[in-house]
Amino acid sequence: MGKAELKTKLTKEITDLGSQIAAAKSAGQPKDEWDPLLKQMLALKVTYKEEIGEDFGPKKEVKKKGDANQVANPKNAEKAAKKAAAKAEKEAKKKANREAREKAEKEKAEKLSGKGGGDQYGNLPLLNSSKITSKVWSEIGSLSSSKSSSTVTIRGHLQSVRGFGKGVFAIVRSSLYTVQCVCFESPEIPKTMVEYISKLSNESIVDVSGVVTVPDSPVEKCTQKDVEIKVTAFHMVAPSAVLPFQMEDACRPDCDKQSDVGEYTGEEVESSDGLIRVGQETRLNYRWLDLRTPANQSIFRVNSFVGHFFRECLVEKGFVEIHTPKLLSGASEGGSDCFNVDYFGRPACLAMSPQLHKQMCCACSGFEKVFETGPVFRAENSNTRRHLCEFTGLDLELTIKEHYYEILDVFSDLFIHIFDGLNARCKNEIERVREQHPFEDLRYLRPTLRITYAEGCKLLRDAGIEQGDYDDLSTENEKKLGDIVAEKYKTDFFFMDEYPLSVRPFYTMPNASNPKLSNSYDFFIRGQEILSGAQRIHDPVLLTERAIAHGIPLEGIKAYVDSFKHGALPHGGGGIGLERVVMLFLGLPNIRKSSYFPRDPKRLSP
Amino acid sequence: MGKAELKTKLTKEITDLGSQIAAAKSAGQPKDEWDPLLKQMLALKVTYKEEIGEDFGPKKEVKKKGDANQVANPKNAEKAAKKAAAKAEKEAKKKANREAREKAEKEKAEKLSGKGGGDQYGNLPLLNSSKITSKVWSEIGSLSSSKSSSTVTIRGHLQSVRGFGKGVFAIVRSSLYTVQCVCFESPEIPKTMVEYISKLSNESIVDVSGVVTVPDSPVEKCTQKDVEIKVTAFHMVAPSAVLPFQMEDACRPDCDKQSDVGEYTGEEVESSDGLIRVGQETRLNYRWLDLRTPANQSIFRVNSFVGHFFRECLVEKGFVEIHTPKLLSGASEGGSDCFNVDYFGRPACLAMSPQLHKQMCCACSGFEKVFETGPVFRAENSNTRRHLCEFTGLDLELTIKEHYYEILDVFSDLFIHIFDGLNARCKNEIERVREQHPFEDLRYLRPTLRITYAEGCKLLRDAGIEQGDYDDLSTENEKKLGDIVAEKYKTDFFFMDEYPLSVRPFYTMPNASNPKLSNSYDFFIRGQEILSGAQRIHDPVLLTERAIAHGIPLEGIKAYVDSFKHGALPHGGGGIGLERVVMLFLGLPNIRKSSYFPRDPKRLSP
Repeated sequence: MGKAELKTKLTKEITDLGSQIAAAKSAGQPKDEWDPLLKQMLALKVTYKEEIGEDFGPKKEVKKKGDANQVANPKNAEKAAKKAAAKAEKEAKKKANREAREKAEKEKAEKLSGKGGGDQYGNLPLLNSSKITSKVWSEIGSLSSSKSSSTVTIRGHLQSVRGFGKGVFAIVRSSLYTVQCVCFESPEIPKTMVEYISKLSNESIVDVSGVVTVPDSPVEKCTQKDVEIKVTAFHMVAPSAVLPFQMEDACRPDCDKQSDVGEYTGEEVESSDGLIRVGQETRLNYRWLDLRTPANQSIFRVNSFVGHFFRECLVEKGFVEIHTPKLLSGASEGGSDCFNVDYFGRPACLAMSPQLHKQMCCACSGFEKVFETGPVFRAENSNTRRHLCEFTGLDLELTIKEHYYEILDVFSDLFIHIFDGLNARCKNEIERVREQHPFEDLRYLRPTLRITYAEGCKLLRDAGIEQGDYDDLSTENEKKLGDIVAEKYKTDFFFMDEYPLSVRPFYTMPNASNPKLSNSYDFFIRGQEILSGAQRIHDPVLLTERAIAHGIPLEGIKAYVDSFKHGALPHGGGGIGLERVVMLFLGLPNIRKSSYFPRDPKRLSP
Repeated sequence: MGKAELKTKLTKEITDLGSQIAAAKSAGQPKDEWDPLLKQMLALKVTYKEEIGEDFGPKKEVKKKGDANQVANPKNAEKAAKKAAAKAEKEAKKKANREAREKAEKEKAEKLSGKGGGDQYGNLPLLNSSKITSKVWSEIGSLSSSKSSSTVTIRGHLQSVRGFGKGVFAIVRSSLYTVQCVCFESPEIPKTMVEYISKLSNESIVDVSGVVTVPDSPVEKCTQKDVEIKVTAFHMVAPSAVLPFQMEDACRPDCDKQSDVGEYTGEEVESSDGLIRVGQETRLNYRWLDLRTPANQSIFRVNSFVGHFFRECLVEKGFVEIHTPKLLSGASEGGSDCFNVDYFGRPACLAMSPQLHKQMCCACSGFEKVFETGPVFRAENSNTRRHLCEFTGLDLELTIKEHYYEILDVFSDLFIHIFDGLNARCKNEIERVREQHPFEDLRYLRPTLRITYAEGCKLLRDAGIEQGDYDDLSTENEKKLGDIVAEKYKTDFFFMDEYPLSVRPFYTMPNASNPKLSNSYDFFIRGQEILSGAQRIHDPVLLTERAIAHGIPLEGIKAYVDSFKHGALPHGGGGIGLERVVMLFLGLPNIRKSSYFPRDPKRLSP
């Protein structure tokens, strides 16, 4: 890097730090929060002077007072010469003093900035694959008393640091796990090292080496309670700027007020316990930080494993994974709620489901059993706790020999496999979520309970709730039915089938015994729908008839109908909303909590 | 269904069949092709008369000649009465005869249409989950001589049917597998049953029951060569209309001409062997049929397993699956080749890669090891054999402790796991692809060969090809390098790293020892790129600097840069094009052959 480039770089870094400090001060942050930045800035200014050869900042043009007068009066010349000599001597002394002081300051600053700490402590240079050492790295989650006395090296976020007198406690976090690192002044540990660690900013990335020891009493603040690390080396890999919110606040258990205010409006709330909670909108604006909380680390590991167990079960049953196009020339289900795309000047839209193509693959192309996991796009202007404009669909479609119950059997196996899998493999994650968002374990039967729509309606009416056998079910009544079923059958998960034909999509197979019903079903967790599906019509004539009955223009579905004309297998399936399953399995209050980067009518970033 | 509705339905069906027959005739199709449709139409006309109570078609208003004259002449009254009586008698006789004839015709038609065949043969009513029987179904792929003498029931597409005199041979296909079904007239098998089977149209869905027997000589035409089924029952579940091309033609091995013409222009070609091949465009227009060929059934099972082994390896290594948004508020890599979307009146675009969000999850949110499989959108106006506008990205990103070689180690394990997995689990599929599209098995080393860009350039220059160490590599030179490496190292798969910094995206980490190089890499199969990746910049100051150097407007990447300001882990990764891996593993000539429903600048359907 050239000198000019370096000057630009350093100027930018120093200015940036300056603004961050100013912002922190004006936001009323305690000194502890911005002091490390100040130290960093000072260290950078020293570097600036060293490398660029001048002080940082605008040059001060000091006008020497009286020079003009003195020259104008010759009588004062000798006096002036003497004075000048004395002054020069004084200046030289001053200079020597200043240089000595600057040298000391520089050394101190270097030590604090880590430049002088060498292998023991300090800021590491940019990690750009310049070397490979023989260092062995340990996972924080694997540290336990069985490793006592061994020397380990870990990397993680500096969750918190607390210095006092001659010592410092630092908590370091990696994914779900935290460990306490302890460093006291000693013949091996210089004072500057303890000071250096104390001044590091929270959430910086640090490398810590030390000896695993068993403390007298468990470290309640950390996940690795029965060990701590006696620090021998402590380096910073990457610094953190001032945080928009404190991680401690973001990790607190839900409070009562929150479900009414903070979680949904984005306002920070102070609860009756007097402690701050971080609001939903603030969290989402800084999602990359919010995702660091143990609850979020856990939610998304559960999210990951739902997909894993979904596919594991289906691959085992001989299903083939498909990838259907998201760019379509027409609305996939004839709806208006699709996003429009400019496709090389032609109008296109984003698939609202893989419906048509997954049917083609399953029933028309002979793959027979197919699944897909991929994004689904809905341009619905719904601002609720359970709607997203982009979510992950877990779709499957399979041929049937005689009856759509064959599909329900597969789904029952599938969900039990997912729930069992989560309970076995994500025990730790489930508990970490529960610590922040309390919930009851999901109850489910083997095989899954199935009731008909008519039975569901009757259960509601028996409980004094108005519900006609052929009327659509409101979200509110779905919730109530969920409660009734939970009470009666002791399950939070059930199937309901034989929906009225009129409330289902045109491609739904009418019921054989009652033409007002259909061979369709919805699945519910805790009274909320997570899947909708049906036996589909495989006969192109009936399909056309039903499209006409639904008022769907035939030209828009021509390719779809045509694909059934060359021998189509009887089939059916359904689509699961991944984020809904995660939300409801974990009893979360908002679907935005189970989507990595939620998209809703108001939010399109980060 | 009411009478009026039924009338509409039947009229539509009969008319449709009529047009199909007319189309087939005018297309010069042999009678065998459209005769089954004619039979179906006649049967439907009989049903029409039965159910609706009138003949199908416009009523013929026959005017009785001379009536007016006769009435005008009273002298003729007696004569007329006599005549009328005789006529009435004659009419009655005629009517009786006609009724007898109609009854016989109807019975014959019913038998041919299957309505009279009952449990033994005929067309099944619409399969709408009306009943569950105790029938046990067998997979065609599981039929072998060990099942000899047992009675089985199968369902599949009627691939071909060949009747002669008193017998009929039918080949039935399900997914990859085919079996021959044999039916001869006998005391148990009526003549009408043999006739019924002979007249079924190719690609109809059929249910066949029969006894597994071992033929005298292997059935060369089928995958299940050592058995055939002696038919006891044969029913049609769903008919096929006239096919746009013959499956036999779609299954033929590639010919020489094809790779130049038919496969890419969509023209059907007649090869030097005198046999028709189906062109690429025709295949894609009727993709649901094209996907039925054994080669395509196999290609997409391989496609499915690439994703399976990709995830299996990474989950085993502790990676977390992520789902990043495809709807973005800005171009994901600052490029202009993105599709624009209307997001509730705001401009948005489709992600050209999960780059920014996967880095956030990995490096900024502490997930450390993440992967994603999902669609990637490129609005590039490239009409080549290897570009698609929508493809499936297999992306991964992981933190590194010291060096990006850690990433290459993971990738080496990953690809070896995928290739080994395919070779072990998809043996049969690989052979079925080879039958139609001949190719050599992929050769790969353990661990994967790695050469630097400079080494690659030197290899080219040593072979007399112009290539500067800091110049971009053309597709042509990539191919040539692939050939040289294959010759020298006996591998069709290798990594190349240390690309010139100037040819890589702004977020690529510069090389520590040579500032003109970068910590980046591409992977190649058979001389074609399948992955591009790098160590990324985790320092926000350097990131900003590099963005400026690339001329990327900072306001567009603000959130991206900001996400690195709160302590980001050193990291890197890469993105794999699923369809490219499948195409190149199987040596296919065109990427459209490994995409279910390809999207290119000219194609947006089906």
